[in-house]
Amino acid sequence: MRQSELFTKTRRETPKDEVSKNAELLIRGGFIHKEMAGVYAYLPLGLRVLEKIKNIVREEMNKIGGEEIIMTTLQRKELWEVTDRWSDEKVDVWFKSSLKSGAEVGFGWSHEEPITEMMKNFIGSYKDLPVYVYQFQTKLRNELRAKSGIMRGREFVMKDMYSYTTDEESHKKFYDSVVEAYHRIFERVGLGEKTFLTYASGGAFTDFSHEFQTVLPTGEDTIYLSREKKVAINKEVLQGGVLEKLGLKKSDLEEVAASEVGNIFSFGGAKSEALGLFFKDESGKSLPVTLGSYGIGITRLMGVVVEALSDEKGIVWPESIAPFRVHILSLGEKLKAKAQEVYNKLNEVGIEALYDDRDISAGEKFNDADLLGLPVRVVVGEKHEGKLEVKNRKTGEEKLETVESLVHSLK
Amino acid sequence: MRQSELFTKTRRETPKDEVSKNAELLIRGGFIHKEMAGVYAYLPLGLRVLEKIKNIVREEMNKIGGEEIIMTTLQRKELWEVTDRWSDEKVDVWFKSSLKSGAEVGFGWSHEEPITEMMKNFIGSYKDLPVYVYQFQTKLRNELRAKSGIMRGREFVMKDMYSYTTDEESHKKFYDSVVEAYHRIFERVGLGEKTFLTYASGGAFTDFSHEFQTVLPTGEDTIYLSREKKVAINKEVLQGGVLEKLGLKKSDLEEVAASEVGNIFSFGGAKSEALGLFFKDESGKSLPVTLGSYGIGITRLMGVVVEALSDEKGIVWPESIAPFRVHILSLGEKLKAKAQEVYNKLNEVGIEALYDDRDISAGEKFNDADLLGLPVRVVVGEKHEGKLEVKNRKTGEEKLETVESLVHSLK
Repeated sequence: MRQSELFTKTRRETPKDEVSKNAELLIRGGFIHKEMAGVYAYLPLGLRVLEKIKNIVREEMNKIGGEEIIMTTLQRKELWEVTDRWSDEKVDVWFKSSLKSGAEVGFGWSHEEPITEMMKNFIGSYKDLPVYVYQFQTKLRNELRAKSGIMRGREFVMKDMYSYTTDEESHKKFYDSVVEAYHRIFERVGLGEKTFLTYASGGAFTDFSHEFQTVLPTGEDTIYLSREKKVAINKEVLQGGVLEKLGLKKSDLEEVAASEVGNIFSFGGAKSEALGLFFKDESGKSLPVTLGSYGIGITRLMGVVVEALSDEKGIVWPESIAPFRVHILSLGEKLKAKAQEVYNKLNEVGIEALYDDRDISAGEKFNDADLLGLPVRVVVGEKHEGKLEVKNRKTGEEKLETVESLVHSLK
Repeated sequence: MRQSELFTKTRRETPKDEVSKNAELLIRGGFIHKEMAGVYAYLPLGLRVLEKIKNIVREEMNKIGGEEIIMTTLQRKELWEVTDRWSDEKVDVWFKSSLKSGAEVGFGWSHEEPITEMMKNFIGSYKDLPVYVYQFQTKLRNELRAKSGIMRGREFVMKDMYSYTTDEESHKKFYDSVVEAYHRIFERVGLGEKTFLTYASGGAFTDFSHEFQTVLPTGEDTIYLSREKKVAINKEVLQGGVLEKLGLKKSDLEEVAASEVGNIFSFGGAKSEALGLFFKDESGKSLPVTLGSYGIGITRLMGVVVEALSDEKGIVWPESIAPFRVHILSLGEKLKAKAQEVYNKLNEVGIEALYDDRDISAGEKFNDADLLGLPVRVVVGEKHEGKLEVKNRKTGEEKLETVESLVHSLK
């Protein structure tokens, strides 16, 4: 894409009403726009990142048998009363409103109830199981405070997956495959080394649940980490039997701040029982379906990537989710034809490039390139006898290339 | 995809609470699930159709210079008060709620205001124009009644595009390019022959606006149609100067029921002026930006396709938006290996197929295939010396093919 055609602009000044690094950098780069606290629109560059993250997650969910659906924002009061999660005393993040008829409706902050209720139409026998479904849903949560940019919003995109199985054994097997898929996802979005499977409190049904936590100085959680065993324990359960279970000593663990990027829960049969989702087993006996839920906050994950990987100059996108892989900068009118040639060549071989063809100073272009954080910067300038200056945004490594050698090295 | 792995099932009985053909067929086929009146979830097959429609629209919007973004559901009261569209007397489809702080918020039923407000960050000079942006947004509208299935919902997906230009002339040029893009879209989703550019009432800023209306017996509008000139007039403006303008006589026009599938509006500079979106022209003079808006109801369009193209046996999807292009039916255990071979061959060459590998009767498979409406049905049976029975869902045309000749004819 030509940068002159992009309607967004970068800003030099820090937005006054933002305290989080992710919102600050993303707003300055024109990736997002703040509508109100915790509520952000995604502009062309930001939407490209979001869609790339979604596609990575989608591929991994499909690989383990997930079927994609999309549930609704509007929610029926009656359904949530069944599980006693309608009242504001029980769930304090509901947005609620009324239909013209006067009937109260809520706005989806979670979808376990409606998906499980729906499954009553499709699950009746053990032959119908297992079922694994997932969606990318815009969740609305009436949070009291929202100061963490896109890391904790009142409106945010979440991937939530639900598993319906016959028993604990088949549940456990799928649960393990989700753990593996989550590891692959965090690896692919560039957070693999910083992200750890973490034992957390399990709610009513199990001793522990699992979270995935990314080590981050600005993270809201405290975890105790064994880098050696690649596992962590959330502070909230450190006193339990979890150390023993994992064969760890507290003194060997590192206390670090971290941010939760994924969570997985086992509900056993309790939620299905409450909602009336039963199946007949091979002997004709009626049993509640075993339920698991598996979340990744997609917009949150994008915020964590920005917080974890940026430097003092701006964002550093991993190649897998960068809005474009290459940023071409032409320095001066005379070099536009050459820059255009580079741009055309990259397009021809399918390498996504943003071409800064704007009539602004070289200094402004360099600053914008650092802020936007595309992995490979290609400067078309007058030095170096016509060779291109190619710089790696992450490592700072520079080298000189011809158009041909650049294409070759990127392919 | 193997049909045995699809969690949805078809239903023979008509849902008791639906009066529209689109909802009836889509629910029976397992494409959608009703959450409440006018609020539907999209299940795997339905989501595939929806995404294909979105991709066609996306391609055409990108082709005319559109940049994709995604705005927010949550809306600030203060912003909508500026244009006097907050109060329930002025806009009767708002869903509203409150933040914990007590501040009122609305849920987006339209996005002209927030997008135009946001553009104040990016538009200051004639050099920043034109800007064309669009989004696929889930709109929430508190409709009094919702009986038309996915054709008029309380929650629905809309593509809305907005153009920001310097003057009427550049606006008109873009407006015309949208008209052409819309014609291409309706052609590509299979409604080209039934869909007409229609003159409708123009609101405060222009004599007429344009709608795209699809001729449909169950449509909620009445239009007067000139098939010869490929243009129509909405009943609401038939008495104006529109006949003269178009060189038409009322007696030559055909009165038909139709359903609106797209609309385009010119706002001139009024909305920008109200919201404070001005630009400096070449002489340094401050002028309001000229605004146009261009909508296509994506879920509605899916509903109209179902209503317009189905027959007594079920849905008839056009190839461009069918969830799968081919439906393979294996009749009996002995033929599974052969059916699997056909399925593998089609996968290899990238032809999307649904393979009905379920252990149910041939009659049930035939009925389901008709209901689901995939364009090409391939029966792997015992007759015809091993040849495949290939039937076109739309025309009913049947022929015998080998695996090789089938692949060849579909490529």
